[in-house]
Amino acid sequence: MNKTNMLTIAYLGPEHTNAHLAAQQRFGRTAKYLHAPTVDDVFSAVERRRADVGVVPVENSLEGAVTHTLDRFIDFVDTPVAIQGEIEQPIHHYVILGRGMQPQTVRLVFSHPQALAQCRRWLSQHMPHAALRETNSTADAVSYVLENTRVRAAIGRKELAEAHGLRALPISSDRENKTRFLVIGLGRPRKARRNKTSVLFGVKDRPGALYDALVPFKRNRINLTKIESRPSKKKAWEYLFFIDLEGHASDPRVRKACEGLERSASFVRVLGSYPTGK
Amino acid sequence: MNKTNMLTIAYLGPEHTNAHLAAQQRFGRTAKYLHAPTVDDVFSAVERRRADVGVVPVENSLEGAVTHTLDRFIDFVDTPVAIQGEIEQPIHHYVILGRGMQPQTVRLVFSHPQALAQCRRWLSQHMPHAALRETNSTADAVSYVLENTRVRAAIGRKELAEAHGLRALPISSDRENKTRFLVIGLGRPRKARRNKTSVLFGVKDRPGALYDALVPFKRNRINLTKIESRPSKKKAWEYLFFIDLEGHASDPRVRKACEGLERSASFVRVLGSYPTGK
Repeated sequence: MNKTNMLTIAYLGPEHTNAHLAAQQRFGRTAKYLHAPTVDDVFSAVERRRADVGVVPVENSLEGAVTHTLDRFIDFVDTPVAIQGEIEQPIHHYVILGRGMQPQTVRLVFSHPQALAQCRRWLSQHMPHAALRETNSTADAVSYVLENTRVRAAIGRKELAEAHGLRALPISSDRENKTRFLVIGLGRPRKARRNKTSVLFGVKDRPGALYDALVPFKRNRINLTKIESRPSKKKAWEYLFFIDLEGHASDPRVRKACEGLERSASFVRVLGSYPTGK
Repeated sequence: MNKTNMLTIAYLGPEHTNAHLAAQQRFGRTAKYLHAPTVDDVFSAVERRRADVGVVPVENSLEGAVTHTLDRFIDFVDTPVAIQGEIEQPIHHYVILGRGMQPQTVRLVFSHPQALAQCRRWLSQHMPHAALRETNSTADAVSYVLENTRVRAAIGRKELAEAHGLRALPISSDRENKTRFLVIGLGRPRKARRNKTSVLFGVKDRPGALYDALVPFKRNRINLTKIESRPSKKKAWEYLFFIDLEGHASDPRVRKACEGLERSASFVRVLGSYPTGK
């Protein structure tokens, strides 16, 4: 908390991106927002107390894990940063183009790789002759459109088009598209009615190691809502695992399961217990 | 096999990319090579018999799964394509720049996002003032350098620099960087001395479902070398799993384990049994 008692929130920017909107959804419009160009910068801002909390994407329901965020916990395994919460946000993509322009005349479509991937089917049907260009953010994509609105378009949120006086056409999808964001900070949140705990662990190099790691959770009747493997980066084809489980690290059953995990794992780090988001 | 008996190999192109070199490493220089711009195009070339086999990246030891490749098996779950083999390739990155130029004068570095990610630490030390630009391939990155060799550089293989008369400086790394490629085709390879089997499965929505899915492998003493979760894309936060196991689908123990898996899973698809690569 800074001197004025106004919460400072670092988010994966630039402005008007999904992370910015997710942060505003949770912390309101009166907080102080600090945009950071990379996931690493969001973590650093929190570690150096330039921000009270950070908001970073961790998973999309279509494209999967945001590996930059997971790997930040691996690369800086001793970070004092803990997960304090999660924010779930429905994603609605729009084609953003000059006023009076039509999708058929577009020759170049700019967007973040995840947005392009999520709209691939729609683009191949509605703009079959447009080439795709990856950008660092959906906001960056719009800046390319502003350079030449006659043949260029971007994919992003409606708000981005509004901010620049451009037109936004909805991209329909029959698939559930949501992004989950993590709220990170140095403190530990109060225990809520329904909690979730995130754990990072490594397994010893022996057959059945992952199975053995899961036994204590089964035995203590703890439900895992998610498991994600990531390269250890120390040895090729050696993995670390991220799990999310229902419950709080201080719950007796969760504590027992984590103690069991510690006996079979090569290392265990609880990344945080936090209220189950929505 | 086409009429002339010369094998046609589709690979994730353009030329001189890692997939091209991995394909040449396995199939030699006399085969016919067909470059395909996307992972999906490689699969399609094999499905439509325009190529006998395809070569696509599936995993990097630092950056993890190549999700495009995994998701192609999910999006077209009834594809007749099977995994026929794997190729492991060490990756050595080079800074590619104009002859006589120095890294310090570079202002823009172009490369594939995975290559940029793998070299981030080196770049921040040796080219702290260069901005990074993502491209579709390392070969594309070099074409940007050719437009302006005075301030631009690319990251890619040494061979790419040689092909264009540019200079290549090695990027040192203390971390093991390897990419694993899959060989895909319509036939089923002969059983080798040491085999690996890849399986895709879904779990039913109930507590302990993943644990239950792993029990038959533990019980039949089958070693899992890898597990990867991916979004089902049908419902948010519902996952499918890819596992690699030691053994051949026709081995009695593997067969028993897969039968056990079928009893607890929502669906099971064996993606192929193939010789363990190197």
